[in-house]
Amino acid sequence: MLEQFKKHLDKFIKISDDEFVDITQYVELQRLKKKENILTEGQICKANYFVLDGILRKFFINEKGVQQTTEFAIENWWMTETFSYINQTATEFYIQAVHPTQLLVIRQQAYDELLEKHPALEKYFRMVYQKAYAAAQMRIKFLYEYSREELYLHFLKDQPAFLQRVPQYLVASYLGFTPEYLSEIRKKNLS
Amino acid sequence: MLEQFKKHLDKFIKISDDEFVDITQYVELQRLKKKENILTEGQICKANYFVLDGILRKFFINEKGVQQTTEFAIENWWMTETFSYINQTATEFYIQAVHPTQLLVIRQQAYDELLEKHPALEKYFRMVYQKAYAAAQMRIKFLYEYSREELYLHFLKDQPAFLQRVPQYLVASYLGFTPEYLSEIRKKNLS
Repeated sequence: MLEQFKKHLDKFIKISDDEFVDITQYVELQRLKKKENILTEGQICKANYFVLDGILRKFFINEKGVQQTTEFAIENWWMTETFSYINQTATEFYIQAVHPTQLLVIRQQAYDELLEKHPALEKYFRMVYQKAYAAAQMRIKFLYEYSREELYLHFLKDQPAFLQRVPQYLVASYLGFTPEYLSEIRKKNLS
Repeated sequence: MLEQFKKHLDKFIKISDDEFVDITQYVELQRLKKKENILTEGQICKANYFVLDGILRKFFINEKGVQQTTEFAIENWWMTETFSYINQTATEFYIQAVHPTQLLVIRQQAYDELLEKHPALEKYFRMVYQKAYAAAQMRIKFLYEYSREELYLHFLKDQPAFLQRVPQYLVASYLGFTPEYLSEIRKKNLS
């Protein structure tokens, strides 16, 4: 499993095998069951999660009591609740495994020590955050620009493989509508 | 003006005066008139902009031909169109000065050379992107969670000083409604 993380790092920076062995001292492996939470509302987020296998989702519970999914992370993506992590404030989000999921976990203190010892990883995380920020900017544009139906059609065109892997009720939760409404749109666009 | 940038860097990393002098070789000062664009739709974004004085806004033109503002940057904030910048694709956004604005500009090649020569700045930009990403995540949550009127009230409570500095029609453009609707909400909440 760690080999996968090394390959991911190699796409961004040069890390020797010896350095990588040392880097692995700062990370932990963790397995989540389907629907297991690794962060719940009210906690302070104190770790970064890298998906080795499976899918994580981030959601909050809106005032109607409905889970609103805002983000998914598949293999080779990082997920954390950055606002809570930076400010050390209670999070309004949950992070949950969609399927049985294997993670690399870097806890906050280990993360700071890791970057201190291996500054090459600053470049790696700068690029990871830059990409994540770029995606978030486009996401905000889509939320302004598209109707909910258009959001679905865009998602279908842009991320077909991803859509296959996520249960329909979570696709609906991500797009902000009910499973029944998603079902109607699907039928309409299939016919 | 460069002293202001040094003070900003000092909040995140340690940079000696000599290093800072070298860093300034990679940046350019630029002045924009009110409503002057520094990026327009169809261009490839090839620079990062740091606001020394004034305000930048980012917007796109929606299918109704209306400018939809998605982001503002005031003093000591960076702005770029990260998606276009990373992927070297034509942007769908404009970046424009709200008032007469002074910028530090780092062009893409200079940016890469600068980080190569001063790796301490990797940490700085990692933290800048981490903060920007955290803000974008919360922004996405608000777009799902709040009605347009609630968005305005939240903005009013959270960013009162900012709201004073931006013309009302741009506040409306940011919140995604017409200036007339904003005017109605303001009246209602003042009475």
